[in-house]
Amino acid sequence: MSTSDSVSPLQAEVNRLRLELQTLRASDGSEPIEVGNYLLARLAQLKVTQMFGVPGDFNLGFLDLVEDHPTVDWVGNCNELNAAYAADGYARVKEHGIGVVLTTFGVGELSAINGIAGAFSEMVPVLHIVGVPSTAQQKSKALLHHTLGDGRYDAYVKAAENVTISQGIITDKEGAAATIDRVLTDCMTRARPVYLTLPTNLVFEKISSERLRIPLSRTQPPNDPDVAAFVVEEVVRLVQSAKEDVVILVDVCAVRHDAQAEVNELVVKTGFPVYAAPMGKTAVSENYERYGGIYVGSISDPVVKNKVENARLILSIGCVKSDFNTGNFTYSIPAARTVEFHSDNTKVLHAMYPAIGMKQLLPQLTARLAPTPSKISVPPFRAIVPQEDNEIITHAWLWPRVSQFFRPKDVIVAETGTSNFGLIDVPLPEQSIFVSQLLWGSIGWAVGSTLGAAFAARERGMGRTILFIGDGSLQLTVQEFSSMLRHGLKPIIFVLNNGGYEIERCIRGRERKYNDIMNWEWTRLLGALGDADGTRSKSCTVRTKGEMSALLDSPAFAEAGKMQLVEVVMQMHDAPRALKIQSEMGEKANVYGY
Amino acid sequence: MSTSDSVSPLQAEVNRLRLELQTLRASDGSEPIEVGNYLLARLAQLKVTQMFGVPGDFNLGFLDLVEDHPTVDWVGNCNELNAAYAADGYARVKEHGIGVVLTTFGVGELSAINGIAGAFSEMVPVLHIVGVPSTAQQKSKALLHHTLGDGRYDAYVKAAENVTISQGIITDKEGAAATIDRVLTDCMTRARPVYLTLPTNLVFEKISSERLRIPLSRTQPPNDPDVAAFVVEEVVRLVQSAKEDVVILVDVCAVRHDAQAEVNELVVKTGFPVYAAPMGKTAVSENYERYGGIYVGSISDPVVKNKVENARLILSIGCVKSDFNTGNFTYSIPAARTVEFHSDNTKVLHAMYPAIGMKQLLPQLTARLAPTPSKISVPPFRAIVPQEDNEIITHAWLWPRVSQFFRPKDVIVAETGTSNFGLIDVPLPEQSIFVSQLLWGSIGWAVGSTLGAAFAARERGMGRTILFIGDGSLQLTVQEFSSMLRHGLKPIIFVLNNGGYEIERCIRGRERKYNDIMNWEWTRLLGALGDADGTRSKSCTVRTKGEMSALLDSPAFAEAGKMQLVEVVMQMHDAPRALKIQSEMGEKANVYGY
Repeated sequence: MSTSDSVSPLQAEVNRLRLELQTLRASDGSEPIEVGNYLLARLAQLKVTQMFGVPGDFNLGFLDLVEDHPTVDWVGNCNELNAAYAADGYARVKEHGIGVVLTTFGVGELSAINGIAGAFSEMVPVLHIVGVPSTAQQKSKALLHHTLGDGRYDAYVKAAENVTISQGIITDKEGAAATIDRVLTDCMTRARPVYLTLPTNLVFEKISSERLRIPLSRTQPPNDPDVAAFVVEEVVRLVQSAKEDVVILVDVCAVRHDAQAEVNELVVKTGFPVYAAPMGKTAVSENYERYGGIYVGSISDPVVKNKVENARLILSIGCVKSDFNTGNFTYSIPAARTVEFHSDNTKVLHAMYPAIGMKQLLPQLTARLAPTPSKISVPPFRAIVPQEDNEIITHAWLWPRVSQFFRPKDVIVAETGTSNFGLIDVPLPEQSIFVSQLLWGSIGWAVGSTLGAAFAARERGMGRTILFIGDGSLQLTVQEFSSMLRHGLKPIIFVLNNGGYEIERCIRGRERKYNDIMNWEWTRLLGALGDADGTRSKSCTVRTKGEMSALLDSPAFAEAGKMQLVEVVMQMHDAPRALKIQSEMGEKANVYGY
Repeated sequence: MSTSDSVSPLQAEVNRLRLELQTLRASDGSEPIEVGNYLLARLAQLKVTQMFGVPGDFNLGFLDLVEDHPTVDWVGNCNELNAAYAADGYARVKEHGIGVVLTTFGVGELSAINGIAGAFSEMVPVLHIVGVPSTAQQKSKALLHHTLGDGRYDAYVKAAENVTISQGIITDKEGAAATIDRVLTDCMTRARPVYLTLPTNLVFEKISSERLRIPLSRTQPPNDPDVAAFVVEEVVRLVQSAKEDVVILVDVCAVRHDAQAEVNELVVKTGFPVYAAPMGKTAVSENYERYGGIYVGSISDPVVKNKVENARLILSIGCVKSDFNTGNFTYSIPAARTVEFHSDNTKVLHAMYPAIGMKQLLPQLTARLAPTPSKISVPPFRAIVPQEDNEIITHAWLWPRVSQFFRPKDVIVAETGTSNFGLIDVPLPEQSIFVSQLLWGSIGWAVGSTLGAAFAARERGMGRTILFIGDGSLQLTVQEFSSMLRHGLKPIIFVLNNGGYEIERCIRGRERKYNDIMNWEWTRLLGALGDADGTRSKSCTVRTKGEMSALLDSPAFAEAGKMQLVEVVMQMHDAPRALKIQSEMGEKANVYGY
């Protein structure tokens, strides 16, 4: 661990202690600031540039401040669920960032709650700000609109407690700054959504700005140095006794808990073969010479499965063992051969080490491990476009074909369903980001998420933002295309039109009507949603392999100079390889008892 | 009270006791039935014909049974929030009916929760069925998709507890029938939403069908006869000492708790002047000769305000004293002159009588009161189309003008915002139903609600279903128009295009950008959402009074032979009278402290 690495957690601890002292001292700063602007100042310090949400009468005062703020911009969404999804997508793509969504009391916040729950499940740091009635109205339990009619002003907070890691209920100006700081710190350090209420009467109340001089930190508390040193030696010993027959398996928590750089240093220095779980896709470059592809239990490519499961030691970093992420719980890597690195604990074979987090541990381990000669060969992760003697756009053909279209730095968003399972099987380019929601799996999420991702990508100087989504999923959240047009974003959107909920058909009801949907005129949609004269977007339909290839090869299309929507006509009942296997296994588990 | 009236609560009590005995006996019926089909059989008994919702992998098994059911039809919605709104609209228009929405575990149910909370707030009986993982998966806390990733399988139930009156968590087949019956009974008798989980492995489990022979009842438990008789005499005495200077004020609970017929009998027999609160609009015919219009505190027409507030006695039936329903709490009818009739209690001046419900009390009171000579004159409730010397479609002109377009039996749905406040001020025809959401006030609700209302209206042989909604609100839930096209419904939809959230502009941010929205091409929308060849719908734009009048006078338009969308171009910053006053008062209450 370098000096600067060990200083950083200590500095964060110093700042936390200083803030705690500030809270106790409650000193008056020299330049008072409105509570609303204090919150915005903190968001600006965290480099938040976009706030998602919908106006409502209890957040309009705060919105005045947002609209007047020099660096935090307001993105008015079409509805609150889409706004929450957008904040989630923004946080995923923005490096070291959080997403922010603003809603109004009751109606707005409850509409957003599924998006917030998704951020919880998938460990995405999102701040949910709710504009609530004045503290006087809350105390008197006034029978206001947006209430349940029975005076239970705590009902929505109680609902939020189930899907957020921390709640900040501002009740007076004295405690406002500390409450804001607490939930923001929880949001960042625990990589989960938090909930903050802002009563109308406190938005413009002036408070001390003193605390703003001390930055908030996302850095974890320091590991106990003795325990950490012990753990490092344990792992080094295991690596040696494995005679370098070691593989690294990278998963999503490495990304969410800011350990991506540390993981990559370990990977490159050791030269161990490295694989990713589906949720960890693109955490390590898929073009890296020692990267072997995706490990997903029994669904894995047999070569990958063999390599991972037969290694003498597996260094598993940030793993989430959910059904879709493990090939329906078919991981075959016993604890006796595995070291698990997590954000706030480490497990060496069967031994647990609480409060030993990977972010600080991995650099110490990397420093102790020497580069190793490559004992295990790593067949590269490739996708070959199959030769098929027809013009139907099949899943088997589509995903390898579009993988040729991707460029370095593209942001690729996959909706839950055929898109997600299809893209898992093909490699993505250098510095690209793969955005998916495999654990929460809320259909429709990818539309809002693409909006947020496109904002963050534009800001970070990433490449194109490309969405793959099925026709069924798209109907849930389609209006947010309008926000993309409105804000001049230029995503490329592939709508896989296969006549309904294909992922459901794979699971059950293959020929059932309940999996049908209304067929929309996809190419007429953007015109209706605001691109009246067709200058902001372009839409087309492709029905054959030839048409699809011609489009992908077209420089004008690839340049992404405006928003583009491509309806890809596919066959009902066709599905990607991984989804077919997954759903067969899932069906057995989901016993319907008949 | 007639013999049949007093028998009905007793019969209901007998049935409840029989079911309780059944639960204890757990007898085996002669024809076993699947748990899923037991639920459907109960819904069929309650005359539920439509089930709203979205398929998801944990509800597909049950959907097989729904699709195969002879009388309960599946309405696949575009998303879950819209589905919940639709179930709410269906329940509001269907006489003595409940609405049903089916979602999947986690992602689906949380997306619907704002719609469920709205049903709670507005006292609408909605059953929310959630398909959940198998009992084995729940017990083992499997890390399935749609979970929060930490094994908290109770998180969603805990969220639902805040917005439903009763929860049924089915955990084994033995208790399934009793649980289903309990939540359905709570739903009906308490006129609030309830929550029911259906695990995948129990859907097809066979149970006794014995209980199905005993119908469920919506009838309230009987009032205590001695207390009820005492209360009746008290009220009769007050009426007499008021020397017949008595007015009746009808509100929404009279409708929700099935006392509309009883109220109308009282109204007609006594001849007392009768008024309605906004939420109770159309509970009493607005063409009845002794009906004087809407009482809404200080926002009321001065004549109405004077008549109501100066009466010696006010019989207030089913009132909800929320901000928007009372002119921002400006009711001026002191308790010392008021008798309040509620679903489960009665208040005579200052005296509370718990467990004395209006449904059974009102007929007893009506029987004791003689017809009275009309001492108080009642100026009729009229709307006069103003003469304006311009062609702009103003709110002042629009609402009286459209009131001439309405016909008896029309179902008129008003979105929260300018539509709701505009329609309050004009009388609606005989047997029409006014559907609005004044207490909960969730923008976008009216679209889903119109879908449900149109189904119920078609079934009941009502007239046209007519929706008024602003452009801002419509963007939240627009995709549900597609479901209307899909199911051959033919609502008339007026889209008030005034460039954003006008109700918000009235409250705050009159010129703020956060109240702007993207301008859509409204007349191109239905074409994109599935009416490819234009045979199922017709869309047009009206910009002038002349165009609007010509349209309203056109027999082809009025006939409503297909779905019709009318974009009504209006001016930003114009608003109905009642909204202007309401928002001025609300602004003062919503102190922003600066």
